[in-house]
Amino acid sequence: MYRLSDREWHNYREKNKDRARMLIECPDRAGIVAEVSRFLFEHGANIAQSDQYTTDPENGRFFMRVEFDVVDLEKRYEELQRNFAQIGESFQMNWSIVEAKRRKRMAIFVSKEDHALLELLWQWNSGVLHADIPMVISNHPDLKETVESFGIPFYHIPVTKETKQEAEQAQIELVEGKADLIVLARYMQILSPYFLKDYQHKIINIHHSFLPAFVGAKPYERAYERGVKLIGATAHYVTEELDAGPIIEQDVHRVNHQFGVSDLKQIGRQVERTVLARAVGWHLEDRVLVYQNKTVVFP
Amino acid sequence: MYRLSDREWHNYREKNKDRARMLIECPDRAGIVAEVSRFLFEHGANIAQSDQYTTDPENGRFFMRVEFDVVDLEKRYEELQRNFAQIGESFQMNWSIVEAKRRKRMAIFVSKEDHALLELLWQWNSGVLHADIPMVISNHPDLKETVESFGIPFYHIPVTKETKQEAEQAQIELVEGKADLIVLARYMQILSPYFLKDYQHKIINIHHSFLPAFVGAKPYERAYERGVKLIGATAHYVTEELDAGPIIEQDVHRVNHQFGVSDLKQIGRQVERTVLARAVGWHLEDRVLVYQNKTVVFP
Amino acid sequence: MYRLSDREWHNYREKNKDRARMLIECPDRAGIVAEVSRFLFEHGANIAQSDQYTTDPENGRFFMRVEFDVVDLEKRYEELQRNFAQIGESFQMNWSIVEAKRRKRMAIFVSKEDHALLELLWQWNSGVLHADIPMVISNHPDLKETVESFGIPFYHIPVTKETKQEAEQAQIELVEGKADLIVLARYMQILSPYFLKDYQHKIINIHHSFLPAFVGAKPYERAYERGVKLIGATAHYVTEELDAGPIIEQDVHRVNHQFGVSDLKQIGRQVERTVLARAVGWHLEDRVLVYQNKTVVFP
Amino acid sequence: MYRLSDREWHNYREKNKDRARMLIECPDRAGIVAEVSRFLFEHGANIAQSDQYTTDPENGRFFMRVEFDVVDLEKRYEELQRNFAQIGESFQMNWSIVEAKRRKRMAIFVSKEDHALLELLWQWNSGVLHADIPMVISNHPDLKETVESFGIPFYHIPVTKETKQEAEQAQIELVEGKADLIVLARYMQILSPYFLKDYQHKIINIHHSFLPAFVGAKPYERAYERGVKLIGATAHYVTEELDAGPIIEQDVHRVNHQFGVSDLKQIGRQVERTVLARAVGWHLEDRVLVYQNKTVVFP
Repeated sequence: MYRLSDREWHNYREKNKDRARMLIECPDRAGIVAEVSRFLFEHGANIAQSDQYTTDPENGRFFMRVEFDVVDLEKRYEELQRNFAQIGESFQMNWSIVEAKRRKRMAIFVSKEDHALLELLWQWNSGVLHADIPMVISNHPDLKETVESFGIPFYHIPVTKETKQEAEQAQIELVEGKADLIVLARYMQILSPYFLKDYQHKIINIHHSFLPAFVGAKPYERAYERGVKLIGATAHYVTEELDAGPIIEQDVHRVNHQFGVSDLKQIGRQVERTVLARAVGWHLEDRVLVYQNKTVVFP
Repeated sequence: MYRLSDREWHNYREKNKDRARMLIECPDRAGIVAEVSRFLFEHGANIAQSDQYTTDPENGRFFMRVEFDVVDLEKRYEELQRNFAQIGESFQMNWSIVEAKRRKRMAIFVSKEDHALLELLWQWNSGVLHADIPMVISNHPDLKETVESFGIPFYHIPVTKETKQEAEQAQIELVEGKADLIVLARYMQILSPYFLKDYQHKIINIHHSFLPAFVGAKPYERAYERGVKLIGATAHYVTEELDAGPIIEQDVHRVNHQFGVSDLKQIGRQVERTVLARAVGWHLEDRVLVYQNKTVVFP
Repeated sequence: MYRLSDREWHNYREKNKDRARMLIECPDRAGIVAEVSRFLFEHGANIAQSDQYTTDPENGRFFMRVEFDVVDLEKRYEELQRNFAQIGESFQMNWSIVEAKRRKRMAIFVSKEDHALLELLWQWNSGVLHADIPMVISNHPDLKETVESFGIPFYHIPVTKETKQEAEQAQIELVEGKADLIVLARYMQILSPYFLKDYQHKIINIHHSFLPAFVGAKPYERAYERGVKLIGATAHYVTEELDAGPIIEQDVHRVNHQFGVSDLKQIGRQVERTVLARAVGWHLEDRVLVYQNKTVVFP
Repeated sequence: MYRLSDREWHNYREKNKDRARMLIECPDRAGIVAEVSRFLFEHGANIAQSDQYTTDPENGRFFMRVEFDVVDLEKRYEELQRNFAQIGESFQMNWSIVEAKRRKRMAIFVSKEDHALLELLWQWNSGVLHADIPMVISNHPDLKETVESFGIPFYHIPVTKETKQEAEQAQIELVEGKADLIVLARYMQILSPYFLKDYQHKIINIHHSFLPAFVGAKPYERAYERGVKLIGATAHYVTEELDAGPIIEQDVHRVNHQFGVSDLKQIGRQVERTVLARAVGWHLEDRVLVYQNKTVVFP
């Protein structure tokens, strides 16, 4: 199999060695941007990109994402964190500063279908998605060879009604401390609340419909029955309520009466893999903030 | 107000004076196309466009639409009808042959919002939609001046909970025998089964969501709550079950977290008027066939 | 004709009476945002929306647009201007602060085709486009009635090869001091450099192709010849070099082999009016900045 | 590497063992469809899909594609060919009847970039593209391992200015008699007229722009300079005149001022692989007819 494009990643790291991302979410009030930008200026930061959003300038919720360069970031990272803490506190912020060159660790769960998985692996391999992929976990053995050909460990954990709980325990032990993000790339099992509680807004699922249309099972069959003229897919964070978590990205593709269920599925696979890869890319670059079951995406 | 483009319509009629459209729907079996095309050949027809579709070549349902020219169509129209009847019978067809130059009569129902109405009137006025518009009926007086400026009669029939039945009776009396098609261009009242029974697949509504997402009232408010990333609209034939009739056309527009409810509505209005006008155009040109709550559209 | 929606405009003005927009373009260097946001904070501004962009954090060009509310804006507007001047100077900024409630004055030039004009008038009339329209100028008389039905003065200034110069002089006298923006809504004449010099980045044209494909005349005919599968339109600022000015917006619509030249034109008209209205809307809300023949659009 | 999905292909063949496709191109005149459909009926064909198009019912060019099932197709194929020959002659048709279960042989040419190649291999491997891939030829060795992991022979034929002619000779010897279609999946060399003469409308190239915009080299750099708001790709048949062959498919993706050249290239790669795969799929299913440097696509 073709090797991971280490060169791409090396280039990325070189280019981004001094690049940091600051994420802020807090009650909106006057003076936030002034204070944040003064802080960045005083710490010698060069702002490369800055996005902000308020649900309402008066008493709303404020969101901000800043990409900036600081000379010798690695050495000065602790200092930045320490010094910003006071601002964070005074504005009641949820905040973080992350180094762009630290890759998130992404575990992928799959079942039998490979399209969503392969799109992620291809984009990862060609340096579009910046992540470490410590493992792929599946309830079926089918995709073992594929995954391993990319040099990624593959774990087969079968799931039956009876063994569901222990299977989940095995999954948890595998990912615990090893994954910052779990991507369900057409994983056809429902995760229990017990699993979910440690991964709030850290599990991304691709749903094979334009949610909230066709919530639940067999969406393509139902789309066919209903005679819709567009087929969609939705990438969302997984929450306890099925198919109801915060939507990150959606897209659609035009169909017509000639499309049977299997044609819809084939078109759907194209939409699914595109939408999932886009959502995962945004998450990996800290472009998605969540508030009240909705996302703010700074693409 | 600018006058109806009579010149456009005159040109269209001249260009299409010998143009007919044949529509067929029947059980699929071998020999249909052979028989139909032999018929057309023997009657001297020049085929300009021909579309067909089968749900299944074996025991499925067959649909066909042929546009053809016949010299002196007007004189020979009766003969075509008479001669085709036998074929129609032997294949158990629902069929019709219509002259392209005979415009359908389209009544429009509106309430207060003008965007869908104006798009129809603009396209009609510029010769894109070929129809006669004998009347616009509204439960509010607001759009009277607008409608009359196009030279179209406007009828204000208020509807309240108490007067709903007699209001509908008044509407029926107005349209009866005068409309081949009723378009609900953001008409915010529900028509009763009694009204609907005479207009099966002859009433087109524009719903302000990507059905079946957000069936029912206040779809934009609910889309906002759900945090969707695309806003859609659906044109469909009206049936007794609300928002569940055969879908003719759908489209979407991309939105993001910055869009409040009123922004969604504004974007939605653009999608609504585009989708409705496209669906109405197809209906007027006999491009929409209905079967089992789904449409076959030959665009 | 239906009246201008004065109510809409009144509501908009009420809602935006304290809303200002600050526009900045300058060499990028550290501290700009810190200084601007400090200024805004000290003047009691509530930031509603803020966008920025740099071509390069080191020695690039910096662009910023801030929407903010200040209590009693009208009274304090002069003071804001005066106080910001020093910051503007020290960072070598091109800058402006505009009141959202002051509408730009938009003159529209047309020839015979009405689709682009009517879309602008419809969006203006329904309160989507916030502008005053002091006049429509045409080299043909055809659209006089249409324009006047909206209560807008219409000036017919014929243009022939011989009279081109004096016709332009007449146009200039009409718009001089009365228009902040000129929109060429399918105006089929080329403006001279003499005309253009006073309206740099203040004249928006809609070109009927996806520029730079099919620069020049008869783009639909040439698109048909070339057999393209998408038809596009481009809204751009007019510069001396024909069809080469900064692009504001583009869009396309899918076509196929069945589309003849007149079908392409019909589809094209839909794309043209959508694209032009979007570009004009962004310009009216000061969302378009120009630099080196390209636009920065903060939508 | 994951193995070719033989199961998929087996299923396809089973499902399509009696499926044929008839392709017709001829001068339009009355009676063609009648004759063709009579022929099909008399030979016991079940029509599954039928498309036709005429450039003009009077003296235009007629195109037709019929998919049909005939019991025991393999045995009766010769007979169908023989019997249809007379109709073909009398209408001056270019015609062919192909068995759906016979896969076309597709050679792929690449250079260093893998995205277009991998999309084709992925769709081929998952049973979306039905073809045999006897070889991949490249002027660089980089993708050898990738290609061979799919079980496909890889030939490295370096091309320099001096060796161009002999390199082409080596390519010709490899593909001669072994390929029905050549796909240039980002192959960065220009084929000589000598090579092309044997492969008229049998070589598909993906061009990295929305042709005819940015014909020639470095389209993304030039798109960046021009400040376009959409990035496109074009799949077309290769002809002697560079980038001027019949267009099969085009698509675009929205970009904005934030996109640098490398971002445009990344987005472009997504559009390129989608557009190329779609065009190749249509060609493999005999859905593309060429006439006068344009394509008729029956999707």
